[in-house]
Amino acid sequence: MEQQVHFLTLATADLDAARRFYVEGLGWTPLLDVPGEIVFFQVAPGTVLAFFETGSFARDLGTGPARPEVSGVTLAHNVADRPAVAALADRMAAHGGTVLTPPEEGAFGGVFHALVRDPNGVVWEVAHNPGWSVDPDGTVRLAQPD
Amino acid sequence: MEQQVHFLTLATADLDAARRFYVEGLGWTPLLDVPGEIVFFQVAPGTVLAFFETGSFARDLGTGPARPEVSGVTLAHNVADRPAVAALADRMAAHGGTVLTPPEEGAFGGVFHALVRDPNGVVWEVAHNPGWSVDPDGTVRLAQPD
Repeated sequence: MEQQVHFLTLATADLDAARRFYVEGLGWTPLLDVPGEIVFFQVAPGTVLAFFETGSFARDLGTGPARPEVSGVTLAHNVADRPAVAALADRMAAHGGTVLTPPEEGAFGGVFHALVRDPNGVVWEVAHNPGWSVDPDGTVRLAQPD
Repeated sequence: MEQQVHFLTLATADLDAARRFYVEGLGWTPLLDVPGEIVFFQVAPGTVLAFFETGSFARDLGTGPARPEVSGVTLAHNVADRPAVAALADRMAAHGGTVLTPPEEGAFGGVFHALVRDPNGVVWEVAHNPGWSVDPDGTVRLAQPD
């Protein structure tokens, strides 16, 4: 597993307030802005910070007794294809991770993903995301969702 | 303000479990490992993921009625000198941020910092950290703490 965080996603109650603060206030440029749903900012070569509307965040993560620990934060690691999602989730589980969602279609963006909790409760999304790529200089490209 | 997250810090109940999972399990290499306190991993060019022992995390952030919203997560943005800490905290406050801690000496690592909550409760550490630097290729360097 490459030592890389590709997405840091934060559940966000007020997307308009986030946009005002980061875009108008701090002068940041969104990588992709889906009104009412999510705003993405590239914050390092190859790494994206996402503000995800709270209800959509919860739907994407799923609900149920397996995840009372949901904190409003996920980290994501993207892999090259669907079999690699299962392989990495298995590796995480073999080393003390807990699979919350086995590999499946995600709710958003054509992503195929698994969710794995680390031993301290940090939730990782292990994903194959066909709409995501990184240029050689670290610039992230995200396709518009359908 | 450069559009960059320099540190993503997670309060961590069991540092040994984190070390087993990320180092032994996933094969990651720590950038710096301070037993019983904090383990740092570089996870993108210029960006560090830190697992910070819960008690130390809370002490570093401070406590009190101003921060019931502490979630166990902070993002950090480093600046060149101490005056720039105050300047960026002021700019954040002018655009809807809430200063939780005005610029002061931090509890750890010789850092001079302010803590500012964004409109959705995300806590930013705005810091001048003399023990931190980034090489031109994005490699992060962290000095051993005293």
